Amino acid sequence: MALINENYLKLKAGYLFPEIGRRVKEFADANPDKKVIRMGIGDVTQPLTPTVLKAFHDGVEEMGAAATFRGYGPEQGYDFLREAIAKNAYQANGIDIKADDIIVSDGSKCDTGNIQEIFGSDNKIAICDPVYPVYADTTVMSGKTGECATNGYYSGIIYMPCTDANGFIPDLPSERPDLIFLCYPNNPTGTVASKEELAKWVKYAKENNSIILFDAAYEAFITEAGIPRSIYEIEGAKEVAIEFRSFSKTAGFTGTRCAFVVIPEELKAFDKAGNAHSVKKLWLRRHTTKFNGVSYPVQKAAAAVYSAEGQKEVNEVVAYYMENARIMRESLSAAGYPVFGGVNAPYIWVKTKGGMKSWDFFDKVLNEANVVGTPGSGFGPAGEGYFRFSAFADRASVIEAMERVKNLS
Amino acid sequence: MALINENYLKLKAGYLFPEIGRRVKEFADANPDKKVIRMGIGDVTQPLTPTVLKAFHDGVEEMGAAATFRGYGPEQGYDFLREAIAKNAYQANGIDIKADDIIVSDGSKCDTGNIQEIFGSDNKIAICDPVYPVYADTTVMSGKTGECATNGYYSGIIYMPCTDANGFIPDLPSERPDLIFLCYPNNPTGTVASKEELAKWVKYAKENNSIILFDAAYEAFITEAGIPRSIYEIEGAKEVAIEFRSFSKTAGFTGTRCAFVVIPEELKAFDKAGNAHSVKKLWLRRHTTKFNGVSYPVQKAAAAVYSAEGQKEVNEVVAYYMENARIMRESLSAAGYPVFGGVNAPYIWVKTKGGMKSWDFFDKVLNEANVVGTPGSGFGPAGEGYFRFSAFADRASVIEAMERVKNLS
Repeated sequence: MALINENYLKLKAGYLFPEIGRRVKEFADANPDKKVIRMGIGDVTQPLTPTVLKAFHDGVEEMGAAATFRGYGPEQGYDFLREAIAKNAYQANGIDIKADDIIVSDGSKCDTGNIQEIFGSDNKIAICDPVYPVYADTTVMSGKTGECATNGYYSGIIYMPCTDANGFIPDLPSERPDLIFLCYPNNPTGTVASKEELAKWVKYAKENNSIILFDAAYEAFITEAGIPRSIYEIEGAKEVAIEFRSFSKTAGFTGTRCAFVVIPEELKAFDKAGNAHSVKKLWLRRHTTKFNGVSYPVQKAAAAVYSAEGQKEVNEVVAYYMENARIMRESLSAAGYPVFGGVNAPYIWVKTKGGMKSWDFFDKVLNEANVVGTPGSGFGPAGEGYFRFSAFADRASVIEAMERVKNLS
Repeated sequence: MALINENYLKLKAGYLFPEIGRRVKEFADANPDKKVIRMGIGDVTQPLTPTVLKAFHDGVEEMGAAATFRGYGPEQGYDFLREAIAKNAYQANGIDIKADDIIVSDGSKCDTGNIQEIFGSDNKIAICDPVYPVYADTTVMSGKTGECATNGYYSGIIYMPCTDANGFIPDLPSERPDLIFLCYPNNPTGTVASKEELAKWVKYAKENNSIILFDAAYEAFITEAGIPRSIYEIEGAKEVAIEFRSFSKTAGFTGTRCAFVVIPEELKAFDKAGNAHSVKKLWLRRHTTKFNGVSYPVQKAAAAVYSAEGQKEVNEVVAYYMENARIMRESLSAAGYPVFGGVNAPYIWVKTKGGMKSWDFFDKVLNEANVVGTPGSGFGPAGEGYFRFSAFADRASVIEAMERVKNLS
């Protein structure tokens, strides 16, 4: 009898974003005359930039001629892209990461989810609360947890609450984790970690033989000087951290699909007998067996992000979104909402008024202002009473949405 | 302490194709003057066809303008592609598969590997020997086996030998499996299953509450009438089978990346308490949590495969490869090699002479003829003494390779 993976039965409700999609669709179908402004899913709205677009077309054109056609590429990505990433995203910033440490993929959601597969089910995982739901969901799927309690916490996961009280920066966990998910700039709270903060984690991971899974999908949105964009800016991080980065938000690739994982040679994990194993080698074994590389024209497009013109264009798009963030922060603040984030991240984290629950606020904002945001509780129990607005929108929509939210009853 | 998934330690050697790549690179580096002809990895060589290329460009162009830009798409694929697949690949052939049963992905390697995740580790898996190595490797990775014995068999996997004696068509297993991998047209032997043969499996799966994982990646290469191209041509298969298909070989997408899984509504798997669960729902939960959709322009290109012009062009390319297969079959046969496959599949399965071992023959063919094939033993122990030649090559290379192999000492 074909048996299911019963860990799936432990998963609460649907994945957050499909649930938002369902409610929005229901509302839109019932109110075809209302113009819904979507600031829920953190999805970019600006098109690919000209330089990236040209490289994408060039890559497609190569696929149409026998002399330049490419079949299977290296599963871990073409050297031209891995080298462009290592040089521009790391070495140019004084960080010693080699092309060989870069493994290209089709998305950070995939990478942060799939990475669990190379680690045994006996590992204890620490995650922030609230945080991007994929970390917890894939921890459950991979059999590293027990059931979900009524408070929304899965037994076996070490939760690190991020609240108003600690400035949304988690304390070191009281129980020792084996794998620690950190996400900076943070999704959903928009907070960033200072060098000292990250150094604390690197030290902690070293002392405990833990591995940090560092999601830096939003590093391009850091505007303040001195805030680290990579965990490898911290001395010793190469021995304890995997970094996840993506072209999705940086260069508008949410529908184009390209990302990468950085796993330095130095990083080791252990078998139960205490023998050290190269994490990169394990990940490559998974990646080459269960993945077949990113579409060649997409890799060409991604490499163009690092050209001088590409960088200039992409930075302009990032600045456009961050100007949206500024407008939103100021409008929401003026409307009396306590506001966090939005300075070094494209997300504005808002406290609802009068202790309103997140999904109630979601429904209110959708029904009364026809604006879609993300309920904070969807990111974890400590997000209850909060709401995330995304700065990934057109300027006109941002201004209109803020006007409508300001006038909420 | 971060602990590895120790199932990875059970995996024998490297994945077959990287090992071939390593040996070929070593030879090519040492012999820069020799022209190596590659017929090892089953990788297409003909460019994307004009209609597909145009749609690919059109999709890219849409990504460059705000009005037509697409961010995140549905994880399971755009409706336009799912509908084109259901209509053209199934309904047009009288098979009742709905768009809703189609889940689009970036490759069949990914799908046949990842599908294991939704099934518990207590399942017994049956696989043919020899066969595409991903089935066994991902079964091991997902914890459904014990160690690998000296005969090359993992304990816990039910192997179904396919040999000269049974015409490379496996008998029903003596032990009852929960999941059964079948691949027709077969990789590597090039054999196909008749309607009666598949009906036998569907009946067996029904009687045993097993699920058939049917890899139909090569269905486009069937030339003989009456051979089923889909398992759903068999009455009742929707209750017991998942089908995997790909644009890789059919339309030259190995470097472009697009495939799909078919999971009919009717298909159920069970929890240990005996409750039935929708397999499609489980797979969608995995797919929406760990995957973020295929690149939009790639989906546009894939949909163009089903246009009238697209079909005509793609069929011509398939015919080109199958003419290669005919030339190879006849040349190798004339050279005294027992030859199988190559009629309804792009693979020629050759028995070595004098009982030579597969890897020895690989080295001999590489060193003396400078031709790359695939050692049969790489597909499983029963493949020992066999060798796979791929018809995915340019005509001139095929003719030259056959000339060289014919003259082998």
